[in-house]
Amino acid sequence: MSSIYGKNIKVSIFGQSHSKAIGVVIDGLPAGKTIDIEVLQEFMLRRAPGQNEFSTARKEDDKVEFLSGLVDNITCGAPISAIIKNTNTKSKDYDNIRDIPRPSHADFSAHIKYKGFEDVSGGGHFSGRLTAPLCIAGGICKQLLLEKGIEIGAHIKEIGGTTVDVYEKISETKKIGDSVGGVVTCQISGMPVGIGQPMFEGIENKIASAIFAIPAVKGIEFGNGFEAARLLGSQNNDSFYYDGDQIKTKTNNHGGILGGISTGMPIVFRVAIKPTPSIAKEQDSISFSKGENAKLQVRGRHDPCIVPRAVPCVEAAAAIAIYDLLMEYEGEK
Amino acid sequence: MSSIYGKNIKVSIFGQSHSKAIGVVIDGLPAGKTIDIEVLQEFMLRRAPGQNEFSTARKEDDKVEFLSGLVDNITCGAPISAIIKNTNTKSKDYDNIRDIPRPSHADFSAHIKYKGFEDVSGGGHFSGRLTAPLCIAGGICKQLLLEKGIEIGAHIKEIGGTTVDVYEKISETKKIGDSVGGVVTCQISGMPVGIGQPMFEGIENKIASAIFAIPAVKGIEFGNGFEAARLLGSQNNDSFYYDGDQIKTKTNNHGGILGGISTGMPIVFRVAIKPTPSIAKEQDSISFSKGENAKLQVRGRHDPCIVPRAVPCVEAAAAIAIYDLLMEYEGEK
Amino acid sequence: MSSIYGKNIKVSIFGQSHSKAIGVVIDGLPAGKTIDIEVLQEFMLRRAPGQNEFSTARKEDDKVEFLSGLVDNITCGAPISAIIKNTNTKSKDYDNIRDIPRPSHADFSAHIKYKGFEDVSGGGHFSGRLTAPLCIAGGICKQLLLEKGIEIGAHIKEIGGTTVDVYEKISETKKIGDSVGGVVTCQISGMPVGIGQPMFEGIENKIASAIFAIPAVKGIEFGNGFEAARLLGSQNNDSFYYDGDQIKTKTNNHGGILGGISTGMPIVFRVAIKPTPSIAKEQDSISFSKGENAKLQVRGRHDPCIVPRAVPCVEAAAAIAIYDLLMEYEGEK
Amino acid sequence: MSSIYGKNIKVSIFGQSHSKAIGVVIDGLPAGKTIDIEVLQEFMLRRAPGQNEFSTARKEDDKVEFLSGLVDNITCGAPISAIIKNTNTKSKDYDNIRDIPRPSHADFSAHIKYKGFEDVSGGGHFSGRLTAPLCIAGGICKQLLLEKGIEIGAHIKEIGGTTVDVYEKISETKKIGDSVGGVVTCQISGMPVGIGQPMFEGIENKIASAIFAIPAVKGIEFGNGFEAARLLGSQNNDSFYYDGDQIKTKTNNHGGILGGISTGMPIVFRVAIKPTPSIAKEQDSISFSKGENAKLQVRGRHDPCIVPRAVPCVEAAAAIAIYDLLMEYEGEK
Repeated sequence: MSSIYGKNIKVSIFGQSHSKAIGVVIDGLPAGKTIDIEVLQEFMLRRAPGQNEFSTARKEDDKVEFLSGLVDNITCGAPISAIIKNTNTKSKDYDNIRDIPRPSHADFSAHIKYKGFEDVSGGGHFSGRLTAPLCIAGGICKQLLLEKGIEIGAHIKEIGGTTVDVYEKISETKKIGDSVGGVVTCQISGMPVGIGQPMFEGIENKIASAIFAIPAVKGIEFGNGFEAARLLGSQNNDSFYYDGDQIKTKTNNHGGILGGISTGMPIVFRVAIKPTPSIAKEQDSISFSKGENAKLQVRGRHDPCIVPRAVPCVEAAAAIAIYDLLMEYEGEK
Repeated sequence: MSSIYGKNIKVSIFGQSHSKAIGVVIDGLPAGKTIDIEVLQEFMLRRAPGQNEFSTARKEDDKVEFLSGLVDNITCGAPISAIIKNTNTKSKDYDNIRDIPRPSHADFSAHIKYKGFEDVSGGGHFSGRLTAPLCIAGGICKQLLLEKGIEIGAHIKEIGGTTVDVYEKISETKKIGDSVGGVVTCQISGMPVGIGQPMFEGIENKIASAIFAIPAVKGIEFGNGFEAARLLGSQNNDSFYYDGDQIKTKTNNHGGILGGISTGMPIVFRVAIKPTPSIAKEQDSISFSKGENAKLQVRGRHDPCIVPRAVPCVEAAAAIAIYDLLMEYEGEK
Repeated sequence: MSSIYGKNIKVSIFGQSHSKAIGVVIDGLPAGKTIDIEVLQEFMLRRAPGQNEFSTARKEDDKVEFLSGLVDNITCGAPISAIIKNTNTKSKDYDNIRDIPRPSHADFSAHIKYKGFEDVSGGGHFSGRLTAPLCIAGGICKQLLLEKGIEIGAHIKEIGGTTVDVYEKISETKKIGDSVGGVVTCQISGMPVGIGQPMFEGIENKIASAIFAIPAVKGIEFGNGFEAARLLGSQNNDSFYYDGDQIKTKTNNHGGILGGISTGMPIVFRVAIKPTPSIAKEQDSISFSKGENAKLQVRGRHDPCIVPRAVPCVEAAAAIAIYDLLMEYEGEK
Repeated sequence: MSSIYGKNIKVSIFGQSHSKAIGVVIDGLPAGKTIDIEVLQEFMLRRAPGQNEFSTARKEDDKVEFLSGLVDNITCGAPISAIIKNTNTKSKDYDNIRDIPRPSHADFSAHIKYKGFEDVSGGGHFSGRLTAPLCIAGGICKQLLLEKGIEIGAHIKEIGGTTVDVYEKISETKKIGDSVGGVVTCQISGMPVGIGQPMFEGIENKIASAIFAIPAVKGIEFGNGFEAARLLGSQNNDSFYYDGDQIKTKTNNHGGILGGISTGMPIVFRVAIKPTPSIAKEQDSISFSKGENAKLQVRGRHDPCIVPRAVPCVEAAAAIAIYDLLMEYEGEK
């Protein structure tokens, strides 16, 4: 088991980069909810490749096809299943990586784990393409959360260490045939107080375990995060005060979560995304078949920076995590 | 559900700071494993308070009492249950926080969630004391992992922004009645290749969702972590090479995990721990009963820095996560 | 959550009787296993309608289309997804049951639960048609179990109280426009000793919780079952003896399971299947819209007896349950 | 994993017959619920041995000791943990069964599974004694359900095939040094319509997977159960009608469940309990150490019939299952 998330809803993601289709089953959503397919499709578009000069040339419209769970775009209580057909696949591009694993890709660990039977084409189940079904599920959860007044928005915080002119940084990187990482900030507003559980089912645990499903994520921090580790308690503590009859905190260093449970302040977290490991430069690797060191030239065209496309994925993962917790909260009321 | 972790093993933690006992049930461990109680008790001691001048004056020997699951210190296949009796409890110290929540503690969110029925004494189920049963379970898993050649070790990386003279930093902080945070580094060596699953059950997901059970943790990063977000692919990629007949990477920026799956290189991650929110200084808060702003003076004695005591907790959480994944891996072989 | 089964493998079933497709995701199967598609399709045929004079006239070839998880019919470690397109749907036939629930169908309880948003066509997610994806998953597990020497076979034990000439009984029932129930016996041979867990994850618990997913199942008994309740211990106990160097029992009243764990003797259980509630006779019901009693004439053609088609479904459910437990057992070795 | 049940609540049972204590952790109960300890203790008494001439002479008051989760007998939102100390243990009685497994006990399958490390004293984790913590959890759930108007009651339906003078039947059996089985009927009234899920999380699946945790249970049937398999649809179908503004069924052959979901009619199920395998008569078995057939004389005193003591256990298991489903239902409203 691996590609399933959730307790109250269950999100089961399937597909490989070059399989017939990729898709998702979402089990446990309430009946009677209208899904705005157009809004969903626009959300998918934010993740889709080919949107600008910095993303891969693989053109895919990522058209979502629902197989079940909706009647006239309204949830009927049965599991929702949706697929995206894979059409623009060029499996030949990946022939050499079957033998020579790409540095910092999952090729090597997958090859050993699956004893050589892994689907190597396009990265198989480890491809960034699998974030498309994540976005289907997350896009639906976002709509259901918005109905409850909970809004999720992420944006690029920095690319390659710079917070200004981020797209210029990507452009420069592309020119030199390299790739670059970045940081995404996500904020969730409109949270009621009391969502989340202590210990293993806190908001941080749940969001983190969803976010790390996005390939290339290497870190996550909430509120002040790693900066908090450098502060004194008197600097980091957030004082409570009454704003009318609502209790708020003057600052939000805690990022909207105390004891794993929402405080009503916006949830704020940041996600570190490494530079995509596919670069044009020749790299050192090994050959499984020859049992010796080998040079690797990754062919095909790749994003110089996946951070822009990761932004909706972060929103999607967060939406799934929060919606799962929200269902629990509704039962507690 | 909240205080239960795991799939192949299930770790169920119970207790409040001032309840009769705190404890843990560990379900699913194999039969026939000898637990070295002395080694476990020494591990517990690393977390226990009162070990040095910087930890709380509450003296607790944290003596682990096994109720079931062991016959002559050997696992018998039945769930292991173990408790630590709470003896040194001073509930009176916490009377005022029932009405006036401590800034950046779980008092406020728990009060709303549990409708005022939460156990407020000593922080209840949110107390750092609940890391003791976490360490029982983690200490046992550490022993079982070591038997398989997998070693887990954590240490303080920095306190309040400094990486040298960390204990001096704590001492200074104590003098001014404040608290300070820090960063813990954890390394897991001896990992076979192939542990972990893609997407939601990757090593990062599993470790993160265990680590955030430790109070005060605000961030986690693997390998290069947030630093990777500032690098180029050519800088961050780890080249493969043959070291004899073993495939290794020249650098370990990936922190031993690719695609959620172990590569055989040491797993490396860092954990950000905020300054403990209990400080001597008077703070701004609110009064639930009066419905107005209020001043709060936290009484009792508290650790100026919990980072040293968090070190074994990080090891414990990691051990539970890795052991849970290891059982899956054993079945796959 | 509802239509997901399993711990080590996860079987997620989706679809409604008249949705675009029905299907299944199977997460957690090992890589490198060849699936014999022809054998699977033959297994599907045993469940498919229109095979003989007693099953519904709805002609469906139940052609399984794999979307992912297989490369050249070999599992690649990624989740397997497979669908069957719904082609022969006559939604008009079900117009009146939207208002007048069919006696002993799920129409009524689903209508209240899903607040009128349930997909009523063809029974929606409650349709017997959803046993097709169950058979896909079960058929695959059957093949994997057979490779380990574990064989699962079910057959009709009785129809409408008779154990002889069962098909004659069905024929008679059909003539009078009625339906009839029956009992299916299932046997699992080749089980190693030690599969299953005490208490909540015993073989009985796991098989029962899978079998009750088949619509119309109203009971299950293992070994001597309800007959055991009428016996003395001296009559029901199974003596152990050595058969060469193998330990067996002289009788198998325990049905191959003691303490939830396999004994190596064949697992034997029986499943009670009620008469299909769709009958030609006019029945008493109510009208939701009018708020008064109403007569119902169920239109369309229906199986007079679903027991023959339930036989492979029982095998499928058992195969999924046993394979899930087997994976745990492999890890324990 | 094995001795844990539930999704919204998690019931984790631990202990062996002769371990220091047996007990249970119940995670996920709402805060603010008063537990009537006296009522709970009376419920425990129904299961306790030594209540009458037919139960074992082992005298145990089964005094429940709460370790956490309650403040002044009110749930505080933290996991409830409770233990019963084992005091009256005579481990010597079980010396010979370590080598010679008792027919139709779990001794043999446990011995192989746990490689000889199982706790053999008193049956270890497989002992009927472990139904005591089941009753703690179930007794608490019963109280919480009653508050919602849901009442669970079980009673003896038959002993050894007779439905009259059941206690006389037990008395006769005791005289001849044998044991006898029976059937328990359980009814759950006050159910709202709409509890339960289709397929794998239906009421039948959930109750069955809890009930089979009770040792000696060999079968379960809902509503008409196995009798339904002998009927025609026209005989077994339950007509709907309006009783005032409530929709009911004229008969209750379906046992209150259609499509896995409650209909509002009483849930009715029956449980088959085999004769306890411990009998005074000498039996045939094998010797592990000698590798040959052997005779076994089970020493100690045992219940001639455990059915009376199983009655509260059936209620307890059903209460846990229904309460777990109820929490989901509350969230759906």
